This record gives sequence, C-alpha cells and structure tokens, in this order.
Amino acid sequence: MAVFYAVEQGINLQKDGERLVVKKEGRVLKTIHFHNLEQVILMGRICISPAVIATLLKRRIDTVFLTKTGKYLGRLASLIGKNIELRLTQFERIKDPQFRLTITKAIVKGKIENQQMLLRRINRKGLGLEDVILKLRGMAKRVEKEDDIEVLRGIEGIASRLYFSAYAAGFGKGIEFKGRERRPPKDPVNSLLSLGYTFLFSNVFSIINMVGLDPYLGCYHTVDYGRPSLALDLMEEWRPVIVDALVLSVFNLKVLNEEDFTESEDGLFLSQDALRKFIVQFERKMGERVTHPFRETKIRYRSYIEAQVRSFVHVLRDEDTYKAAVFR
Amino acid sequence: MAVFYAVEQGINLQKDGERLVVKKEGRVLKTIHFHNLEQVILMGRICISPAVIATLLKRRIDTVFLTKTGKYLGRLASLIGKNIELRLTQFERIKDPQFRLTITKAIVKGKIENQQMLLRRINRKGLGLEDVILKLRGMAKRVEKEDDIEVLRGIEGIASRLYFSAYAAGFGKGIEFKGRERRPPKDPVNSLLSLGYTFLFSNVFSIINMVGLDPYLGCYHTVDYGRPSLALDLMEEWRPVIVDALVLSVFNLKVLNEEDFTESEDGLFLSQDALRKFIVQFERKMGERVTHPFRETKIRYRSYIEAQVRSFVHVLRDEDTYKAAVFR
Repeated sequence: MAVFYAVEQGINLQKDGERLVVKKEGRVLKTIHFHNLEQVILMGRICISPAVIATLLKRRIDTVFLTKTGKYLGRLASLIGKNIELRLTQFERIKDPQFRLTITKAIVKGKIENQQMLLRRINRKGLGLEDVILKLRGMAKRVEKEDDIEVLRGIEGIASRLYFSAYAAGFGKGIEFKGRERRPPKDPVNSLLSLGYTFLFSNVFSIINMVGLDPYLGCYHTVDYGRPSLALDLMEEWRPVIVDALVLSVFNLKVLNEEDFTESEDGLFLSQDALRKFIVQFERKMGERVTHPFRETKIRYRSYIEAQVRSFVHVLRDEDTYKAAVFR
Repeated sequence: MAVFYAVEQGINLQKDGERLVVKKEGRVLKTIHFHNLEQVILMGRICISPAVIATLLKRRIDTVFLTKTGKYLGRLASLIGKNIELRLTQFERIKDPQFRLTITKAIVKGKIENQQMLLRRINRKGLGLEDVILKLRGMAKRVEKEDDIEVLRGIEGIASRLYFSAYAAGFGKGIEFKGRERRPPKDPVNSLLSLGYTFLFSNVFSIINMVGLDPYLGCYHTVDYGRPSLALDLMEEWRPVIVDALVLSVFNLKVLNEEDFTESEDGLFLSQDALRKFIVQFERKMGERVTHPFRETKIRYRSYIEAQVRSFVHVLRDEDTYKAAVFR
C-alpha cells in the first residue's frame, strides 16, 4: 500500500481501467494501481478527473488537499465516519476525567521518553546533553505521579522547550535553529518541522477517520471548536520519532540545505524539487521497519501508527490500557 | 444564495477571479459568483479545476459528488464538523430514551400530518380518499399517546403504505404507480421519488454538517453502522411536502413523461435533459415561499428546512421542544 503525493504543479490525474495515470502535457509520468493506493495527497494545482474522484470515493482512498506550501485545505469524504457505535463509546468514555487522565499520562510520558531517546542519539557525538536528558527522565517520572491534567500540560510544555534547545545542538554548521516557532516558520528547520507535522497529522487524522472515531474529541488536548484534539493526542508520541529525527538527518546528510527554501510573506517554504526530495525521505521513514516493543516482531512505522490508533479503540472498549509507542 | 447543479456531462468548472465559470469545449455556459453559492452538486463526469476545489473548500461551500443517475458518492469536507461542543451535547441528550421518544413522536406525527395534507389536496378532485385521510388522522392521534418507539415505527410504516396507495390516485392517466419501491426504481414515479429524496437528503445532511451535528446519531431511525439517522430523522416531515408534491405536479403538469426515462440494469433513470428540467422544478420548489406556522412570516422552504435543523440544536440544548413543520 502506498501514499501518492502529487506535488508537480499542473499535472493531471486520470483513470485508465484500474490504474491512476499521472500525466504532464500528455506525457505519462507514472501509473499506480488503485488497488495499491492507501492515500492521495494533492499539493497545489493538481488536476484531477471526475473518474478519479469517483474511484477514490468508491474505494474509500483518503484524499487530502493541501496548498502548494502544505497548508491543509480539506479532503474528500467518502463513506468515512460511519461507525457511529464506536463514536458513542468514544463520547461516553472520554467524559470520564479518570479516563482522560490515564490517557494523558501515557501520551505525555511517551512523548518525553521519545524526546529523550532522540537526544541520546544526538548525544552520541558527545555534545554534553546528559544534563537535559537526565532532566527529561525526571520529568517523565513526575508524569507518572501527577494527577492534574493542567500540571501535566505544564510539564509537557517545559519538557518541549528544554528538548528543542538541546535538539538544536544536533545540527551541523550553517544550520541555525533557535527553538520551535510555528506560524509562520522563519527558518529552514522550523519550516521542515511544520511540514513534517502536517504530513504526520494527515496520516493520524486519516486513520482516526477510517476507524470511525471523531477526530475532534480527545483526552489531552482541550476540546475546543475546530481543534482535532484526538488526532493531536495520538500524534504526540510520533513527533520526535518520525519528524524530528527525519528533519535532523535531512539537514545533516545534506539532502536539503538553506538554498532549497524560498521566502514568502507566509514564511519560509520548500521549492518544488526540494519538496519532492523531502517527501521521498518522509515516506522512506514511514516505511522503515522497527521492532515493536510489546510484540517481538518488526513493523513499519506506518503500520505501527495505525496499530496504535486501533489499540486506542480497544482502550475505549476497556479491553486494554493505552501504551505509547516508546523507543530506546 | 444558490445551489449549482452540474449535470451536463463533460463540462468544465473553472475559477476566474471571484467567479465560478462553467465551460463546454471552451465556450462559457454560465458564471456564478462564489459569494452567491451555497452548495454545488456534481452529477457524473464534471471536470473541476484545482482552483475551484481550493475555493470551495476555503469558502466552505458544500460540494456533493453524485453519479450521473443521482447515487451518492461523497463530498468535499472542508472545516465542517468543527463544533465538537455541540456534538458532546448531542451524544449526551440522545442517550436519554425519553428525549428520543419525544423527538420521534414529533417527527412521526408531523410526517403523517403532512401526508394527510397532500392527500387532502389530491382529493380536491373528488377521488374518494376521505376514508384514508380519516385513518391517517386517527394514526396521528395515536402517535401522541403511544410511548413505545417500536410501535411508533410500526404505525409510521402502516401509515406510509396507506398513504402511497392513496397518493397513486393523484396521477393522471398513463402514469402507473403501484406503491413505493426503492432499489432499483422500476417505474417513473419511483425513480423521481428516489431522486427527489436524494436531493432533499443531501440538503438536510449538508445543513446538519454545517451546524456541526453528527448526522449519524439520530432519535427515530435506529443507530446503525453507516446509517445517517439524524439526517433521515430530520428529513421525514419534508418528504410529502417537498418531494411527493413535486413528483405529482411534474407528471400532472406534463413537465416530464414516460419517454424522459431510460432503463438501465440499475433501474429507470432520467435522461440528461429531463434531469435538468427536474432540477429546475426541485429548486423552484425549494425556493417557494410558505407561511411559517409558528411565526407569522413567509419563508422559503430552503430556509425553513435550515430553521428546523437549527431549532433541533435548541432542542438539544433544552431551550425548546421540537415541533415538526406541519402544513394544512
């Protein structure tokens, strides 16, 4: 199963039998069997034929529309969200403050532990990050004992600032990163982090929709008009593992550098060719096999994320407790 | 505000400044300001440019994809469904069997009363339907006293069969209708009823989404995987008023006749030109002004349907009781 990112401006997506055909000025650039498609991400000016739209809807292939720079516009909604029984369970369980607290603790602890993991890897070069790593370990332990969601939010915020200041040390010369800034991203690192989180979010959101949960009702992120809090909750543990690690290697392995970015009034963004390179790296990452900590098998990150969302369904049904995916 | 139905196969929808431009083979057929668009319904092979998709999403204009024969495929989901607070209220209230019962009684009673109204109109020709009308009145009264949802479902079923058998008498010579048959529609009347209900449903579903309710969680229709029960609930009272009345007049005024239908393996469907005629009639109906029974103002059916969905929101918040829109 594959994700198809359409990034080249002005290309046409057509249908030929059971295949998606990508054309530019009449020339075929690529064909993909619909059968193998899991998700389609369209960035910017991508023409899509009515037959393709109908097929994507009929086959329930998640289709996301982003702007050229990766801002979320919307998606094709097929028969997604039909599992109302599951949403009834979700709404019932998430009302319980004890349930929300338990999930929050697992999510925040998992995220901090994965931040530690990444800093330990960065620190293999001997950058003197032991102190921060130790502090994060202490904070992860505090999370276990803390029973106030507001305090947990505070801990998570402090941990993140601490983490990003140490994360900055991981970049080679010439790459400046002074800490996480979201809107607009003003430096290459923040720009790639934002884009990577958009892709990751899109993935988690899509799986949540697919299983039939309401992405707007979560446990840790506050429930607020327009905030897809469940999707944000369930992506937390993956941020350091997938995106932060990827952005680090993309710069350090010189896959991308500062010249690949162009400035606009909305911030700093990747040029089209560089965007394509980043997507290749992102997909390579999502397809990487890692050891599943609870089972003893290898699993691709992409499947692992889906397995975590599905495990959350079991947790809602009281068949399991939530364990974040934690890496060493 | 307008609904744009794109039915001509092979046309192109493009964007020119703030306008939607409808083209065929380079020729401009129509332009509409996005500002005036409320909903876009695309039937079959309609090409839609990336700029149009982006604008529809940004402006949150509901966009529905149907097959050429009017089968629902899916829609563009923009930022719809963000009102999670409202859904929390919905899930909480609909859990209460007493609440579901009260709504069910209002809906079933309203529908039967509107069926009576239509039969009374048909009976102006003196067709001897007094008996059925009287029976329906009795059933509407029984609904008030009945406290078992299963029994209410039974009453509604019996009332509908009785109603459709009398409704058949309203058609002039040459139009045969032996009762409601859904899939596949085998005669012109059933075919138009199905199409009309699809348009009506699409309207109600879209308003429900727009206000942020979960269309899958209703009161009267059973909650089941894939059944948009709230949308089905809230369209009940409108079926006789909008669709059944329209289908009757479309045949009796000879706007359409049997030759406008073509048979396929999936049933009997309108040809393209006839489809366009039917849509004009449907939209004319939706734009008709009627007296609002509770207020003393005239209101278009389209706005009235929206007002009813919004009144359901007030009912959920316990600020009102649900009153079906009943016509005399």
